[in-house]
Amino acid sequence: MNGELNAAEAARIRASFSRQGLMATLGAELGAIAPGRVEIALRPHPGISQQHGFVHAGAVSAIADSAAGYAALSVLPPERGVLTAEFKINLLAPAIGERLVARGAVVKAGKTLLLTQAEVFAEAEGKERLVAFLTATMMSIAGREGIVD
Amino acid sequence: MNGELNAAEAARIRASFSRQGLMATLGAELGAIAPGRVEIALRPHPGISQQHGFVHAGAVSAIADSAAGYAALSVLPPERGVLTAEFKINLLAPAIGERLVARGAVVKAGKTLLLTQAEVFAEAEGKERLVAFLTATMMSIAGREGIVD
Amino acid sequence: MNGELNAAEAARIRASFSRQGLMATLGAELGAIAPGRVEIALRPHPGISQQHGFVHAGAVSAIADSAAGYAALSVLPPERGVLTAEFKINLLAPAIGERLVARGAVVKAGKTLLLTQAEVFAEAEGKERLVAFLTATMMSIAGREGIVD
Amino acid sequence: MNGELNAAEAARIRASFSRQGLMATLGAELGAIAPGRVEIALRPHPGISQQHGFVHAGAVSAIADSAAGYAALSVLPPERGVLTAEFKINLLAPAIGERLVARGAVVKAGKTLLLTQAEVFAEAEGKERLVAFLTATMMSIAGREGIVD
Repeated sequence: MNGELNAAEAARIRASFSRQGLMATLGAELGAIAPGRVEIALRPHPGISQQHGFVHAGAVSAIADSAAGYAALSVLPPERGVLTAEFKINLLAPAIGERLVARGAVVKAGKTLLLTQAEVFAEAEGKERLVAFLTATMMSIAGREGIVD
Repeated sequence: MNGELNAAEAARIRASFSRQGLMATLGAELGAIAPGRVEIALRPHPGISQQHGFVHAGAVSAIADSAAGYAALSVLPPERGVLTAEFKINLLAPAIGERLVARGAVVKAGKTLLLTQAEVFAEAEGKERLVAFLTATMMSIAGREGIVD
Repeated sequence: MNGELNAAEAARIRASFSRQGLMATLGAELGAIAPGRVEIALRPHPGISQQHGFVHAGAVSAIADSAAGYAALSVLPPERGVLTAEFKINLLAPAIGERLVARGAVVKAGKTLLLTQAEVFAEAEGKERLVAFLTATMMSIAGREGIVD
Repeated sequence: MNGELNAAEAARIRASFSRQGLMATLGAELGAIAPGRVEIALRPHPGISQQHGFVHAGAVSAIADSAAGYAALSVLPPERGVLTAEFKINLLAPAIGERLVARGAVVKAGKTLLLTQAEVFAEAEGKERLVAFLTATMMSIAGREGIVD
């Protein structure tokens, strides 16, 4: 999982991301992508908050899950897609700051299931702090009606 | 955890829910609330989708986590608030249909930590189907600066 | 998942359990089995303890995972086996008492993956107390070399 | 979390490990210990197997949970102990081989809760392979009756 994605592989991930309506609704943006590694960023704003003003665990989970899912997709052949079977997320500190960045990575790619992880960092005043840690089981799928990428 | 919440307890949960900016952004609505049990509903729409058009796991997680969190809050005294320490969610079937309903419940309330769960059902054509199952560890907090409910 | 397992189905689960060397080493015993539901019991003793004298989380997990796994196996056709893909366990109270009982159940059976759960109760002085709660993703397998039941 | 544990800190972990009856029953051995990092090894044998002859997920979990727990303990002051609040383990490949090694580490240490992880590798023919990945929430405790280390 070194090197770079070729143009078609990168374009496939960017196209799939643009179809995730939730990412646009939250204001999330796709960042760096590489084989087995994908970043998604999100700027905190009141529309994604929980009751104390922090970013809601659901929004943190959304970018972490998508970063992990696209990390998985980046190592699969073009005819296969990915579905999240399960994830666990530990919320380690309030998600506040200028920007959140979720860094997804593939831990181990099996034939049917892939274990992925995502670390979510909050950036503030030039520093970053780990605020959440996710592990997710992704299921590699093919040939399901209407499901691609 | 039988009976009903009194008016002040119910009002506290409704006020806290209304401060969760993400719930309004997603279009989620607070439903039935009772001691140890809280429901949150969400109508699928393109703005909360993943790449295949299903509701994104992040949006499913958001209502499940909030339903579980408010179930926890409903059994705590007024001076205490709740933070999610971690959750795991299993995504069992595509989240599609006319409406999703997350039903949160307290499994066991400890002194510092509460185990909660939430089942998410998709309603379509008069039937409901289990599409996700969450367990969450909630942390009971008090006296943290600026954190209430 | 009502009714009873037939004699062949029940015998299959008992035979598989007897091949789990760890269950004998821990002193665990297979209890009631029904379609989608399996119980395993364990008497606390110093050989399964953690450092405070409680039953070790690993031993609690072992009976919870096996109870959940056999619950899954009980709803599958004879030619299929089960592997645990992942589980989460919440440890809610010290595992002490006269006897622990893990009650496994199938939450939802999909084509490839089954979501199962197990509650672990500690019995003491005629009462039982919930001490752990597990959810597990079981993978239905067939035709893998040497893997049955 | 660099450097080495001093003699008293290392002795404390070794003494606590020796009180875990389950570790002796399984045949597990404490390996390298450093601030925030602890290894536990286990040789596969029929007494710790599941039904296919692999090491049982419960035994894999036991060494992973203990390695993670002692990693947490290694960064806490002497008057504090550790309890596992929850863990998730993903089982990535059959646990077979000459030796299993669980490597526990602290991901983030909070005031009350610590997030830890453990990777479990199977060694065979001079190579090691990742077979399981655990994340665990550890609770730092003090002053509970009879609970130390």
